[in-house]
Amino acid sequence: MNEFQLIARLTQSLPGNPAVETGPGDDCAVLDLGVPGKRFLLKTDAVVEGFHFTRETPPEKIGRKALARGLSDLAAMAGTPIAALVTLGLPPGFDPELVAAVYNGMNALAREYGVAIVGGETTTNPGGLLLSIALLGSATAGKIPLRSGSQVGDAIFVSGTLGGSLAGRHLDFTPRLAEGRWLVEQFAIHAMIDVSDGLAGDLRHLLQAAGVGAVLRKPSIPVSREAKARARANSTAKTGLLAALTDGEDFELLFTIAPGDAIRLLDGWKQQFPETKLTCIGKIVAGEGIRLHDQHGSQLFHGDGYIHFA
Amino acid sequence: MNEFQLIARLTQSLPGNPAVETGPGDDCAVLDLGVPGKRFLLKTDAVVEGFHFTRETPPEKIGRKALARGLSDLAAMAGTPIAALVTLGLPPGFDPELVAAVYNGMNALAREYGVAIVGGETTTNPGGLLLSIALLGSATAGKIPLRSGSQVGDAIFVSGTLGGSLAGRHLDFTPRLAEGRWLVEQFAIHAMIDVSDGLAGDLRHLLQAAGVGAVLRKPSIPVSREAKARARANSTAKTGLLAALTDGEDFELLFTIAPGDAIRLLDGWKQQFPETKLTCIGKIVAGEGIRLHDQHGSQLFHGDGYIHFA
Repeated sequence: MNEFQLIARLTQSLPGNPAVETGPGDDCAVLDLGVPGKRFLLKTDAVVEGFHFTRETPPEKIGRKALARGLSDLAAMAGTPIAALVTLGLPPGFDPELVAAVYNGMNALAREYGVAIVGGETTTNPGGLLLSIALLGSATAGKIPLRSGSQVGDAIFVSGTLGGSLAGRHLDFTPRLAEGRWLVEQFAIHAMIDVSDGLAGDLRHLLQAAGVGAVLRKPSIPVSREAKARARANSTAKTGLLAALTDGEDFELLFTIAPGDAIRLLDGWKQQFPETKLTCIGKIVAGEGIRLHDQHGSQLFHGDGYIHFA
Repeated sequence: MNEFQLIARLTQSLPGNPAVETGPGDDCAVLDLGVPGKRFLLKTDAVVEGFHFTRETPPEKIGRKALARGLSDLAAMAGTPIAALVTLGLPPGFDPELVAAVYNGMNALAREYGVAIVGGETTTNPGGLLLSIALLGSATAGKIPLRSGSQVGDAIFVSGTLGGSLAGRHLDFTPRLAEGRWLVEQFAIHAMIDVSDGLAGDLRHLLQAAGVGAVLRKPSIPVSREAKARARANSTAKTGLLAALTDGEDFELLFTIAPGDAIRLLDGWKQQFPETKLTCIGKIVAGEGIRLHDQHGSQLFHGDGYIHFA
């Protein structure tokens, strides 16, 4: 049983509440707390030593990454962060200076995005450092893209470049909050997700939620500089394309939109976010699965994104 | 540096947000999200194997306890729970049946109190099981007792009985949500906290927040049956009184109120909650610290509540 199978089992019959508009299974939960035109988002995300960072990672970057991951989930729902709760699990014999450095990294990013740190807990965790951050955010009712809205014929877009994030970008990425909000203000975004499990894995989440398939144009997939360099340097490494499809931890926005909006989207994006790439990588089709297409034809892509939990 | 000193250092300069009415340092954070007459509460709490439960604890009770602890914090702010986010850290080679049982225990309590489980994460945690739950709740503006409102002359009340919780009650306690709300609806509660660190430790939190002291009448302190039995059975165990003052994990409500309200409070409580004890254990005085008083005189109590983190 892997992470996704376990989650599927756990989320089968969770308790509800009338305030819940969208429960577990999307990037954030959506709640109606009684403010007309507004919805509130809830999300929690954890990083663990040995999996999301190592003992050598600078502690400021651990704190930054833990918060940035949750902010990326809010971005995928076009949200604005409000407040965060922090759970810090520390191995015995912790160094208070290290803890302060973790908080410094987290606080700096929180200030940048107007997130209040309103509480938290420090607890003993014998196996290593664990940092779990719960986030509350807000969004505009009717403008919150879920994972499930893709339609056959939609164009598939992704921000930034993909693959090779572990070379460093996974500690320094910019959560695409402004981009997420701009997208829903300007366009009817059919479905959106942040790329944390790898392009193939997260695209599969979108496809399965809508009961559709996708064709991706191989040459269009934006492979990062790091992934290309790694492929060149080491003949046994993943190809750049495979890295972009499966590495994960990119924290870019992956979304679908009516094809008629594609040109206006590309033009508007270039003006609004000139330093961030936006690429149309393919289209939504009837059926299921991901097909990779190039001048030699097309093939079904079986590889999945990174499975965190095994 | 112990838990409280570390928290004091971490919370010195946390980032804020205009929505935050009360930040870290109380049982919950209080937010104004734009609903007239309403406030929203945020709280996170974690339980860790080897500290809050053992490998022998039935997994249903681990899930129940993790949620109940946070609900007890909401109770201390007179809140009503809405939604929870769950982070489950699992040692490698976890048993899916065990995970399902943890969720079953948590879900049953969530249903009882109308809490939606709206999301969560399952992650690897090499050192053992860790369960962190973040809670969102609501409360009535102007009727949220903080820790800081005690006044000289106030009567100090505590619900239930104290001490010996580790004999079993720490896994089965009832969060005092109905009691917390009833108290603020009927009375001006000056300050309130839930007893998690032990009566002495949590009373000190109230005293320090208001810059006052307390005199407790030794014979009035409601010692639990379990704490009395343990003291009788083992001559080297804590006395019942010391257990009530320092054991912790009682999850009862400790609050202060104008002395003129005391009789009406005791009468009303007996009608409303006939199965739960409510005891006036002493009064708030000028100065600082806790004095224990009986017919032989009074003494300063130096012992603290349980320090979770060492």
